[in-house]
Amino acid sequence: MTDPWVVRYEGYDAQDEGRREALCTVGNGYIATRGAAADCAADDTHYPGTYGAGLFNRLEDRIEGRTVENESMVNLPNWLATRFRIDGGPWFDIDRAEILAYHQELDLRRAVLTRWLRVRDEAGRTTSVTERRLVSMDVKHACALEITYVPEDWSGRLEIRSVLDGTVGNTLVKRYRALSGDHLALVRTAVPSPESVLLEVVTNRSAIRVAMAARTEVWGNGRRIEPQRGIVDEGAVVGHHLTLDAHRSVPVTLEKIVTVFTGRDPAISEPAAEALAWLPRLGRFDDLLERHVLAWEHLWERFHLDIDSDGATVRILRLHLLHLLQSVSLNSVDLDVGVPARGLHGEAYRGHIFWDELFIFPVLNLRVPILTRSLLRYRYRRLPEARVAAREAGHSGAMFPWQSGSDGREENQSLHLNPVSGHWLPDPTARQRHVGIAVAYNVWQYYQVTDDREFLIHYGAEMLLEIARFWGSIATYDRARGRYVIRGVMGPDEFHTGYPGHEQEGIDNNAYTNVMASWVLRRGLETLHLLPAQERHELLERLDLRRQELERWEVIARTLFVPFHDGIISQFEGYDDLLELDWDAYRQKYGNIRRLDRILEAENDTVNRYKASKQADALMLFYLLSADELREVLGHLGYRLPPEAIPRTIHYYLDRTSHGSTLSAIVHSWVLARSERGRAQEFVIEALESDVADIQGGTTAEGIHLASMAGSVDLFQRCFSGLELRQDRLYLTPYWPEPLGAMEFAIRYRGHPLTLRIHGDCVEVQAAPGRQRPIEVVCRGEVAELRPGARVGFPL
Amino acid sequence: MTDPWVVRYEGYDAQDEGRREALCTVGNGYIATRGAAADCAADDTHYPGTYGAGLFNRLEDRIEGRTVENESMVNLPNWLATRFRIDGGPWFDIDRAEILAYHQELDLRRAVLTRWLRVRDEAGRTTSVTERRLVSMDVKHACALEITYVPEDWSGRLEIRSVLDGTVGNTLVKRYRALSGDHLALVRTAVPSPESVLLEVVTNRSAIRVAMAARTEVWGNGRRIEPQRGIVDEGAVVGHHLTLDAHRSVPVTLEKIVTVFTGRDPAISEPAAEALAWLPRLGRFDDLLERHVLAWEHLWERFHLDIDSDGATVRILRLHLLHLLQSVSLNSVDLDVGVPARGLHGEAYRGHIFWDELFIFPVLNLRVPILTRSLLRYRYRRLPEARVAAREAGHSGAMFPWQSGSDGREENQSLHLNPVSGHWLPDPTARQRHVGIAVAYNVWQYYQVTDDREFLIHYGAEMLLEIARFWGSIATYDRARGRYVIRGVMGPDEFHTGYPGHEQEGIDNNAYTNVMASWVLRRGLETLHLLPAQERHELLERLDLRRQELERWEVIARTLFVPFHDGIISQFEGYDDLLELDWDAYRQKYGNIRRLDRILEAENDTVNRYKASKQADALMLFYLLSADELREVLGHLGYRLPPEAIPRTIHYYLDRTSHGSTLSAIVHSWVLARSERGRAQEFVIEALESDVADIQGGTTAEGIHLASMAGSVDLFQRCFSGLELRQDRLYLTPYWPEPLGAMEFAIRYRGHPLTLRIHGDCVEVQAAPGRQRPIEVVCRGEVAELRPGARVGFPL
Repeated sequence: MTDPWVVRYEGYDAQDEGRREALCTVGNGYIATRGAAADCAADDTHYPGTYGAGLFNRLEDRIEGRTVENESMVNLPNWLATRFRIDGGPWFDIDRAEILAYHQELDLRRAVLTRWLRVRDEAGRTTSVTERRLVSMDVKHACALEITYVPEDWSGRLEIRSVLDGTVGNTLVKRYRALSGDHLALVRTAVPSPESVLLEVVTNRSAIRVAMAARTEVWGNGRRIEPQRGIVDEGAVVGHHLTLDAHRSVPVTLEKIVTVFTGRDPAISEPAAEALAWLPRLGRFDDLLERHVLAWEHLWERFHLDIDSDGATVRILRLHLLHLLQSVSLNSVDLDVGVPARGLHGEAYRGHIFWDELFIFPVLNLRVPILTRSLLRYRYRRLPEARVAAREAGHSGAMFPWQSGSDGREENQSLHLNPVSGHWLPDPTARQRHVGIAVAYNVWQYYQVTDDREFLIHYGAEMLLEIARFWGSIATYDRARGRYVIRGVMGPDEFHTGYPGHEQEGIDNNAYTNVMASWVLRRGLETLHLLPAQERHELLERLDLRRQELERWEVIARTLFVPFHDGIISQFEGYDDLLELDWDAYRQKYGNIRRLDRILEAENDTVNRYKASKQADALMLFYLLSADELREVLGHLGYRLPPEAIPRTIHYYLDRTSHGSTLSAIVHSWVLARSERGRAQEFVIEALESDVADIQGGTTAEGIHLASMAGSVDLFQRCFSGLELRQDRLYLTPYWPEPLGAMEFAIRYRGHPLTLRIHGDCVEVQAAPGRQRPIEVVCRGEVAELRPGARVGFPL
Repeated sequence: MTDPWVVRYEGYDAQDEGRREALCTVGNGYIATRGAAADCAADDTHYPGTYGAGLFNRLEDRIEGRTVENESMVNLPNWLATRFRIDGGPWFDIDRAEILAYHQELDLRRAVLTRWLRVRDEAGRTTSVTERRLVSMDVKHACALEITYVPEDWSGRLEIRSVLDGTVGNTLVKRYRALSGDHLALVRTAVPSPESVLLEVVTNRSAIRVAMAARTEVWGNGRRIEPQRGIVDEGAVVGHHLTLDAHRSVPVTLEKIVTVFTGRDPAISEPAAEALAWLPRLGRFDDLLERHVLAWEHLWERFHLDIDSDGATVRILRLHLLHLLQSVSLNSVDLDVGVPARGLHGEAYRGHIFWDELFIFPVLNLRVPILTRSLLRYRYRRLPEARVAAREAGHSGAMFPWQSGSDGREENQSLHLNPVSGHWLPDPTARQRHVGIAVAYNVWQYYQVTDDREFLIHYGAEMLLEIARFWGSIATYDRARGRYVIRGVMGPDEFHTGYPGHEQEGIDNNAYTNVMASWVLRRGLETLHLLPAQERHELLERLDLRRQELERWEVIARTLFVPFHDGIISQFEGYDDLLELDWDAYRQKYGNIRRLDRILEAENDTVNRYKASKQADALMLFYLLSADELREVLGHLGYRLPPEAIPRTIHYYLDRTSHGSTLSAIVHSWVLARSERGRAQEFVIEALESDVADIQGGTTAEGIHLASMAGSVDLFQRCFSGLELRQDRLYLTPYWPEPLGAMEFAIRYRGHPLTLRIHGDCVEVQAAPGRQRPIEVVCRGEVAELRPGARVGFPL
């Protein structure tokens, strides 16, 4: 039977190591450490190990004769680097040794990675090596490694080299390797005590200090062993060379406790002083482990999710939650960090911030809204830059960038490599102005769930209004149509960068963008009414937002153009005129055609000519808005959406999408859940497998897909339960297949910890004891009051 | 008539310049700029000009043969430095020139400092110079200086040297000058465009980058003048040497726009890139001014305070509010900064964080609670360090330091100079464990005012419990008394560091500490009941706080010993045995005896022998707790406080206090307000004049006294109005002298902007329009409901 708390790999597979690396990361929202970087790595340079939140560096490169800037999340020094050898033989190398057994296990409940190897060297000596590692969720600056060596059939000299390695680069993503990947310069190394070393480096452009200190001790039979200690001090590599006598069958345990501080941490004097001060305070591996496990236990209570009959699914969902919480957590609340697309521990997209939070916040809002608040403030702090961007583009308000760099400027690459053709091509994807819609939507959702008026007054309202203002300014009046239009943008579907012949110039009237722009404008106006009069007055004055402009918003929100063809929503104006692609022919020829754009470009064709989407675009409307709400928004715009138009629209685009983004499966299963359970289930499986099965064939090794991971959890928590929070009530409309048994999960709502339990034939909500005010729960028209400590149930 | 919006000085007074400097600071909570650092300064090196939030550096010094560490708030480069000369003559120097007129004006409403001089040089040429300066409250990284020169009776060559000066040190406080005061090292200078320069420095120990960029332009007759530009590039001094032809009676205006970024700012790529990117975006002086004034207008609405008949008092109160808001503001919410005792702009105490927030938060809680929240989280981030401190002292829980350094460790000086005797003496004042009481009290007050449960759950409860735990652990059982005792501490009165003969070892059973420790223990237990069950369970588990320990708290909270003598509360155990001081003799001999401790030490005596306090100590109980609450807390401890004991206690200590701290006047006027209006008024005046009249004789020049400033505002808002917020109601019990006419001020309560207007014979509360829930207002037993947009009044 599947253990829903353990991800296990048996046998070593050098080919698959990248995916395992990514999936077996341990982290705490501040530091993330990939799987196999230590002595066993097939290729150390590609798995450098350690990532830290909030450190970015910008470097210049020349590509195709042009100077391009390249901002990357900085890879921290590798704290794991530890090797061993016997009797002066060669250092252990997994690719040369004879591996008798290999077992790797990520304990999800405790967020501990364990690897166990039995190896035989060229001299025939058998050694078992058991390694445990954690990145403390309790003390955010601490990581710990424990390696136990058992000489099964030999006695002799065991040498262990345990170092901190600052020579790492950002080299994980093959197609970026032509770009500068060296970000760290050595400041100093030190040996403050016999057991400990210090490595201090600095990012070579942003000048952020990083200090790492390690305490390395050896234990055997419950007692401290004092090995012969030599110091390794080779440039930016510092550590210990330990030599000791090992005896047949007698385990020897190495403990390496590491602290990490950066110059961007609050509450520090300077990083090296803190790294050294905290090192002796941390106790032993098991002390750290105990507190770490307790912290995770509390997190798992807060993120509780179980399905009676389906341990395999539960395991994947928990793996997804683990990755979410090792990318952002209460440990990152104080840092100026956003939600990177590939987590903290993937180098793809270089740590830039896209729109992924749109798929992630629903999971966080209902459990740790204080974290969502912190992440929204990350955007708020970049509002000034978004204002400048809008102004420079000739608009007003705030234009958030598609790929947000550390200071909130656009970091979208100007050139992008097509690995299929080998061409570096211009990249106009920054035309995805819809990222601002995601920010506004998230502000609104956060406020709806929390009723946090102080946030709205000081930050949220300003963000909503400035984003609304941008849409009010980019929209232009089309006299012929008598409607407002938005030209030259891109929708979520990144295949369509422009019309044939004008490939870089964007498309006009993307339905998703225009409908949501109307929604944003109306929420902006609504927010003004939510503010106390004095705050409203101040904000209007500060933003110099006058009646005339607000009236213009009202008009635009009523009269934006939305394209339709054949009774369905057109993805954008002119979509209908594009060619149909011979999907079967391409599937036959290429197999995987998720990145159809690259295939066509390599054929000297362009995907812009075809009715072919990379991912859900128009269908995003059905994901963000309920059918009722979408009908209302379109109605406000003067369009009617007949009931039969919804399934027609869904099928139309399903048939024309290559799913080149992992987000596609989330949206498609969502939109199909109510109407076609069977087909929805296919997409659910795809969403669940995006990373564990690496369905894009190699992208997982470059970093997990965080939005897809969180989105898969959201499918269970909101889509299948029909969970909605509106009008101060909690609504449930479950569509949950009876054969799957009961699904249970925990949320926080208005201060109540709630447990929802959904069977095929009934739904129950249990409130934890407390002194909060009662809430109202509604299921299919039936309203029930729920008091702390009580339970309500509804038969279905 | 007094203009309650302007602080004005006529005539130049080199002796008084230090005080004017401090009082005429302009700042925005991120940068503060003292008054006169530019061309007119009597002694440039002592008035270096610019301070920034959150930058600290630690240096080592040797004093009396001992190595001591010395952490200081870092003084930023001086952005003001600007001089002029005529026809190649000497550079203008205020101490050499003939000053025909000098007028200095701090416009409180607009937070703009203006100076106007008419000077005549040795050649008999008369020039008028008008200087305006601001530190933008709108764009927190920007400052601006405008200088207009009018050659009244000459034409000729005008040369202006306008630089950024990174050679500044921390030299403001005379007695620290023996200590290392140089914190900045040059990184680079650059001239990115003809009008602009960049100075990049780094703190030499904490390695924090600071980048400052300046754009310098000259205008005349509304048109840009292009002077001959030379570059000044002298080490860490970079800028322009401008030469132009000036004509009799024709004004020439220099505009210097400056940006400042540090490596600790959020939302940056790196400081120099940001400083340069923002420089061209800022427009001209008047553009910055307009937005700056609007930001202040909104602040003044939020901090509205007026007294019909007393412009002089109102002016001082507004000056105090201005200083408060240029030390902490919405601009500092994102920074990891606390509330320094002498504001952002005073070097005394080196920027360390004491207990001043106890006197400051009442003003902020009722207007910008989001700012108090940020400042409480500054403490929360230092909870781990406070835990270590408690553990190392043999206690448990959290022991917050008396002088909190940048990482929250104790930064109390080990040696302190007595300027009277010239002796460096051991300084045991870190025994003031009561600072933790202030932190706990502030957490509780914030929660009471805001009902912010998310804060309580994630941060507040943990702080309260860990501080309670400390008191639970430091208290020991005294079998003889059958009560718990707390030994070896100091109360707020810093004169009493120990008993005679044991001067460094603290005193026992300080009444303030023990009573408030009981209060904290009970609030800790109460908080547990406020938490939802699940959060309570998690927190108890995380803190490993078990039933037995909680029961111990209950016992200690009931049985702490409180010393009394002669029917009054003893300041500490054994106070009654001390000698009476011949106050009159000392007053006669020394005049100012506020720092009696220094006088006695210089006489080879010690203040520890006498019934003499530096500041309110036992009386702090009457300040923090209402008489009813204090009676309840003492009653819980088994002590009865008869009504007559209160005035007796107050008078007893009033007669034995030297008022060596500016906080004393606040507390004393507070405790006297209800009983002895006349005597209270004396202390009110003292509180108001602490800095404007520099009543301590020189300490204002070292930095204003922020707690006293905020406390004086609080006297008016809470003490004279009897404003209390408890049991979800707003209580008013005004004691307001009818002759003073009406007092009016604004607060925020439960989302309502309220204006309170208090006459001698009635009180009115006006609520701004909005959609909030009604609140209840109580005045002397009468309860009224108040709806948005409505007003309630009570005759007195």
